[in-house]
Formats: sequence, C-alpha cells, structure tokens
Amino acid sequence: MTTVDDRTPAVADVSDPSRLAEPDEAISAEELQLATRNHGIPLEALRYDVTPAGLHYLLIHYDIPDVDTTDHVLTVGGAVDRPLAVTLAELRERPRVTHQVTLECAGNGRALLHPRPVSQPWLVEAVGNAEWTGTPLAPLLREAGLGPDAVDVVFTGADHGVERGVEQDYQRGLPVTDALREEVLLAYEMNGAPLLPQHGAPLRLIVPGWYGMAHVKWLRSIEVRTEPFEGYQNAVAYRVRRDTDDPGVPVTRIEPRALVRPPGFPDFMSRRRVVRPGPCTLDGRAWSGHAPVVSVEVTVDGGASWVPAELDPAAGGDFAWRRWRHEWTATPGRYVLSARATDASGRTQPVEQPWNRGGFANNLVQRVEVVVPAE
Amino acid sequence: MTTVDDRTPAVADVSDPSRLAEPDEAISAEELQLATRNHGIPLEALRYDVTPAGLHYLLIHYDIPDVDTTDHVLTVGGAVDRPLAVTLAELRERPRVTHQVTLECAGNGRALLHPRPVSQPWLVEAVGNAEWTGTPLAPLLREAGLGPDAVDVVFTGADHGVERGVEQDYQRGLPVTDALREEVLLAYEMNGAPLLPQHGAPLRLIVPGWYGMAHVKWLRSIEVRTEPFEGYQNAVAYRVRRDTDDPGVPVTRIEPRALVRPPGFPDFMSRRRVVRPGPCTLDGRAWSGHAPVVSVEVTVDGGASWVPAELDPAAGGDFAWRRWRHEWTATPGRYVLSARATDASGRTQPVEQPWNRGGFANNLVQRVEVVVPAE
Repeated sequence: MTTVDDRTPAVADVSDPSRLAEPDEAISAEELQLATRNHGIPLEALRYDVTPAGLHYLLIHYDIPDVDTTDHVLTVGGAVDRPLAVTLAELRERPRVTHQVTLECAGNGRALLHPRPVSQPWLVEAVGNAEWTGTPLAPLLREAGLGPDAVDVVFTGADHGVERGVEQDYQRGLPVTDALREEVLLAYEMNGAPLLPQHGAPLRLIVPGWYGMAHVKWLRSIEVRTEPFEGYQNAVAYRVRRDTDDPGVPVTRIEPRALVRPPGFPDFMSRRRVVRPGPCTLDGRAWSGHAPVVSVEVTVDGGASWVPAELDPAAGGDFAWRRWRHEWTATPGRYVLSARATDASGRTQPVEQPWNRGGFANNLVQRVEVVVPAE
Repeated sequence: MTTVDDRTPAVADVSDPSRLAEPDEAISAEELQLATRNHGIPLEALRYDVTPAGLHYLLIHYDIPDVDTTDHVLTVGGAVDRPLAVTLAELRERPRVTHQVTLECAGNGRALLHPRPVSQPWLVEAVGNAEWTGTPLAPLLREAGLGPDAVDVVFTGADHGVERGVEQDYQRGLPVTDALREEVLLAYEMNGAPLLPQHGAPLRLIVPGWYGMAHVKWLRSIEVRTEPFEGYQNAVAYRVRRDTDDPGVPVTRIEPRALVRPPGFPDFMSRRRVVRPGPCTLDGRAWSGHAPVVSVEVTVDGGASWVPAELDPAAGGDFAWRRWRHEWTATPGRYVLSARATDASGRTQPVEQPWNRGGFANNLVQRVEVVVPAE
C-alpha cells in the first residue's frame, strides 16, 4: 500500500475548493482535463438544422454510467397516491411525441469571463439542436396521483460522483409547475435513433427552454416532494451568485444567444478565418429559452455598427434554434463578426458581460476574426 | 470597412509561427479553442470493445467540409495507365471488408510534455477503436495501372485551410508499398453505419497501424507520384524532430500504449477517483501499430512495482486494441495507477518521456490518481 500521508483518506479528499482564476492565469491542467472529455459543437456544424450524432455538445459531470438498457426501470414515487415502476417498453407504448429542442450548457461562455470561474472552460460552443422523441411526463405524474401539496419533482440519474466534497447521484429538482408543462418529455430517442450512452441512454428528461443541467440523463427515478428540494445541484451548484456568500437565484431558462457560423476557411491553430473578396452569405443560429427569437442583428466591425439579419421561418418550433442570414460583400481588410439575438420577452445579449461567481447563463456576443485578403 | 492596420492583409496573416510554451505557461486561449472542438474518448468508454458513435476521438485540422455525399466521386490519377473516376455506388459494389482498427492521434500526450509544443493539447485520450467497412485500395490501384516507378500515393481530402501560413487542401502521401498493403481500405462505413460527417463522410482512407494523420477523411482524389511527395503534412507537419532545423523522420506507425479505465467514481473537477475498499478489477486497453501487444504490466504505486496483467484474446484482430485486466484488492490509502504495454517487436512505453519538437508519437504511461477511503 502506498500513501502519501499517514491519514486514511476520505471521499471528500478527491475534491478541491471552488476558486476563481488569478487575473492573468491561463487555463489550468484540470480545466484542460475537462475540455478534452466534454466537447462543444464544432461551429461549422451550425450548418445543420438538426445537429448530427457526435457533434452535439456534451457535459458529463461524472462518468457515463454503464446502464443496462434492456432491463431499465423508471420509478415514480414520493408524495404520490400510486407509486409506479415503469419499464422502457411500457414507456414506448405510451403516446409518442417528438420535439426539436436546443440545449445549451448553463456554463457556456465561462472561460471568457474575467475573473474566470475554474470549472468546465466553455468558450461559446456548448450548444446543440436535436430531435428528442419520448412520452410526455405530465400524464405519468397524473397517473401516479400528484397531490395539491406537491412542490418539487426530483429527477435522479444513474451517474455517481463527488463535487466539492459531496458524494452524490446526479439529481435535480424541478418546480412542479414546470414538470407539468406539456412539452416536458421522458425521451428515449435522439434524432430518430435510441439515445447514445453519452446522451443518457436509455432515458433522459427533456425540459424545453431550460439550460442543460435540467435535462437529467440516465434517468432512473422521479420523486415528488412537498418541500423544496435542497440537493447539491439545485441549492449549491447551479445558482447565479455574486460571491460564495450570496444564496443567489436558480439557473433556469436559456438566455438569448446568436452564433455566427464562421465563414470562409480557418487557420488550424488560431481558428482565424480567411474569406475571399466578394459576396458572402453570413449565417448562423439564434435561440432563447424565454420566448421565441424575434430579431438578430449582425456586425462586421466588432460592434461599431449593427444591421438586421433575415430570419428563416421558425420551422423547428418554439424551442429550437432559428437560422439567420445576412448578405455581406467582403472587401480586403480585417473584420470582427458578431450576431446578437433578441427574443419576444425583450431579452437580448449584452455587449459588456455581467459576471457571476459560477459563470452561468452568460450570453455575451461571440467574436469571429476574419481576414479578407486581396484577390 | 474596418482595418486594424493600413496594409491589405494576406492569407498567411491568419497564422502565427509555431512555438513552445514557456516553462511555466499554462494552456493558452488558442489551445483551449482547439480542445473545445476536437475531443478525446471519455476514459470510461474504454469499457466498450468498439467505441460508440460520438465517443471516438476527433482531430479536425480545418472545418468539417460540406461534402455532397450523393454525387461524390473519387478520382485516381497521376502516374497510372488508366485514370479512374469512381462513384460511391461503384465503390460499394466492389468487394466489401470490415476491419476493426484502433486509431490514435499522432499528437496524443502532447500537453504533458515539458516544454509543451503549442498545438492541439491532448493528454492521453486521443484514441478510439471502430469497425471500418469499405473496399481494399490495392486492387483499385492495380486496375488503374501502377507503374514500377511509382514512389508515393497522395490522398487529398475535401477539407481546406491554412497552417503556418500555408493554404492547402489536407493532403498526405503514403509510400506505395504501404498503400498496397491488403488491409488498407477505402472506408464508407463506421460501426455498421454510413460515415458521420466528422469522420470523413462519405469516404476516407484507413491505414491500419498508422497514426490518425494517414487516414485521410473526405477523400476525393488519389494521385500516384514517381517522386517523393513534399506536401506540408508530410514534409513539414508530421515529423519527429529535435528542433525546427532538424529535417526529422516521418511519423508513421502507432507506438505501443496501454490505458487504464479509471476505476470507481470521479470528482467532477479534479477527475480523481474514489474506489471502495475490497476487490476491484482494474482493466483497460492496449494497442500498438508496429506489432501485436504481447504483454501489459500494471502498477498501483506510481511505478515502484509492476505486475503482469491478464490479456483477453485478441478478438478484434491485429490492428484493434486488446483488453487487459488485473485483480486488485483495494485497501484504504492513496494510489497512482498505470499500465504499460509491450508489443511483439519489443517496443514498450517509456517511464521518462523522450521529447520532440512537434509532440508526436508520445507514449508515456498514463497516471490515474485514486483514493480508497476507510469503509
């Protein structure tokens, strides 16, 4: 046996305290370790209406669990009249619906913050848009018999790990009014195929409009509570706080964001773009979890001037991203491209970034550096 | 028009010179940008014999190109008697074979080097094992009529970009003797499904045993040359050099490597592992592109002592990884786990890392930190 100190270690010893990066601190080894296993959408994949398998962003808190997909059972319990145990086959026999839903990680943009919260270091790419097929949750909850005193519905996944010293199964509570929204799904297919292991096979929750942490993967249990759920992922992790003493507010729906599909072709290392002089269609995607996107503006001069983009029809529905486009005539020079979305609730993207301790719900405009050489 | 300087920019302006990180320099913004779009295998996915879609490592030099997969034509030309233009449908009518092949990025391990070459910052995870289906290349070359003076065969993809100031289609030359190996494939399926866009749809080269750079994706042309190919990816990029003045030697076959599937469960941020006391099967995968793996050794004390692991049968063939396992009885303490592969050519993994300027063909043993708490 090899010990580096004499004390018998405890589970909590695998965790370090949360911290902010020093003002000039580059990405740490532990942030890189997360970046090599989780991944974003390659921005050129914004060309696809529906993100193909393997290109959708992934954020996995612990390990992808080894779930037996054939014998999987979902339990529904807690404050209900009739606890249920439902097999996957039984879920597949229930009414089947498909929703196109844009998912975004609540920490998207974190690595661009100053100071930078040290966690999964996303830039802008933690997003994807997929077709999720499953059965609506609300009828199942009603069959179980939800009492009038129900407050939160707690969803538990099969993934297990430690965060900041707290050992846990991944578990999220959702207010009962949100859990009863008709578009909330128990999903067993993504893009017409059974869920992949990394997307929650064989069953996950889909809460259209909410950031990714709500869409519990590898779902194995649903529990109705008559008191607010105080588990780690609700009470500690996913909160917008000024500092660690601030109780903060829960992270819920996705703030509006637009991304530019980088035009032209890239340099390998810098990812700066080359665009040939002449007509160039700029395009990309825009989404919001609060309300439909109603406008997108584009700048090619780093924000000095903005022009309205055209919006394609919202073919994917209210919870899917929407394509925008703008015809640009590229002339030799250097440019910084950005797009900015506004939704029907009046929310838009800030030009200067508000900051919070966890680096959540950021939606600062993206910057795409482009060189247009002489012909 | 906005220019930050008065000079009309050139294509090469998107590139910066290659460089080594400063001795204490953490991961830079540009390295992070690559890490968020390319991705490794999550190490728990070493549990699968064949890596599922979306979990295989990906290294994309430029953008995933937008290839029309229905009208795709492969040309075979250069120093041949009968130039060919072959449709995908025609390739599918030719003899069909499937090989299980482990692919590893030539830059795997780069981010652990001191000093660190600044490029795609892999730790240990740039690997995957898939079933590739296609038609053998050699008969097609023979049909085209390969002369006795053929030296190199050049494979060109549909991906286009800039590297170190050089604009290029991704293009690799392969010595003709290697191109004529019977197991080299023109692959159109991965794991029984049409290639995904990010894996080279609709057609890629598979060169079993070689690092990833040889397996040209989005393959559109094959050209036989009677002089050695001096393109960027052969003559400049993928070479093992002491310094930038050293012409170096080409990167070719995969050096032996074993990975440990991290046991127990992880901490979110540090990825350190918790293993409960008691019996614990350690396992993982081992591979080499030079010759079959003949032994794997395991250490739980950071390399102070090594014990032989059991090897599962080589069910995937000579070019697929092989599972190893070792029964460990975990008692409370702190451990560093590693595994070390040796192949039939006598090659093994170094305990101290040799270094080269590009950070290629590294195979230093992995280190997995584990805590075993009191029961």
